[in-house]
Amino acid sequence: MSKGEETRDRIVRYAARVASRDGLEGLSIGALASELEMSKSGLFAHFGSKQELQIEILRAAALEFERKVVHPALKQPRGAPRLRTLFDLWLKWVNAPETPGGCVFIAAAFELDDHPGPVRDFLVEQQRALFDVIARSARVAVDSGLFRKDLDCEQLALEVHALAIGFHHARRLLRLRNAEALARRSFDQLITRALPAD
Amino acid sequence: MSKGEETRDRIVRYAARVASRDGLEGLSIGALASELEMSKSGLFAHFGSKQELQIEILRAAALEFERKVVHPALKQPRGAPRLRTLFDLWLKWVNAPETPGGCVFIAAAFELDDHPGPVRDFLVEQQRALFDVIARSARVAVDSGLFRKDLDCEQLALEVHALAIGFHHARRLLRLRNAEALARRSFDQLITRALPAD
Repeated sequence: MSKGEETRDRIVRYAARVASRDGLEGLSIGALASELEMSKSGLFAHFGSKQELQIEILRAAALEFERKVVHPALKQPRGAPRLRTLFDLWLKWVNAPETPGGCVFIAAAFELDDHPGPVRDFLVEQQRALFDVIARSARVAVDSGLFRKDLDCEQLALEVHALAIGFHHARRLLRLRNAEALARRSFDQLITRALPAD
Repeated sequence: MSKGEETRDRIVRYAARVASRDGLEGLSIGALASELEMSKSGLFAHFGSKQELQIEILRAAALEFERKVVHPALKQPRGAPRLRTLFDLWLKWVNAPETPGGCVFIAAAFELDDHPGPVRDFLVEQQRALFDVIARSARVAVDSGLFRKDLDCEQLALEVHALAIGFHHARRLLRLRNAEALARRSFDQLITRALPAD
């Protein structure tokens, strides 16, 4: 990495931590610059606008999510093992100590749903891609006879996604001690019901 | 209502609309005062702090949610009709044209999860109460023999709650056209599986 890339990377990593607590809209270029001991114009030299920085945070998080959650899952055998690994690593991601503010995508989803523009567009693209990974993994399992023929793969994707968000809510807001156990049991039952009857 | 109460009410209703789009932290007393054509000190005369206004927004929304969702559901016969009405009215609440920014509780849940303080405490109390309404409605149904004896009522509460949040996400962020149909079908299946085997 060049010096410039290193600085850029440091800014994104720091800003991501702030955004995970205060939201993407809670970022202030002025406050970031002073906390990073840079001038505002020095920071703007790396990111032309706050929007550009927000997209960069989401892009970096998306690469991290691919690396830590999606890719390891896709390496698993098709069917239940693949979806189970995806869900398992996703819960770990939501609970990760490196992101004390929780999942940046979930927070951004409810923050930006009414903020049209390029940041929202980028987020929607990422979230749709994840939705599609779940639905396609289920479809592959149906086509291979591992899941039952009449399974609605889109419905399963919505259910798995809802469960991950519901876990985030129950764990991080309500602080339910058994949130993880409940979410895992619900997921297991979703998978059991997806199996062929025989 | 006295003149003072009317003004207070007008401030809360206006601020709630702003918060539904920009979040509770996105409120600015200065901006609100100028949009309501009041002085900042005039607005502060009604609410001693931004926190007090944020709690008032949540309190007003909680009363509204009780009136529009919880009370009509609790008037239904126990078991499936009661939970079905709750879920049905909840989806209507999430989609209500009066709150173009979506459900203030769901938005606040992901905004405030890392912001300790009285606003978060108030929100958690409200959200726990809702969780308990679902779990208790299920418990009553189990005790009356309407739902199966081994139903985990807390797990059902998490699943119903997750589905409502998941619907909000799929509808308002992803803009999936069939989000409502999928969420309703998932809910129907949750209820069908809660019924006794015979």
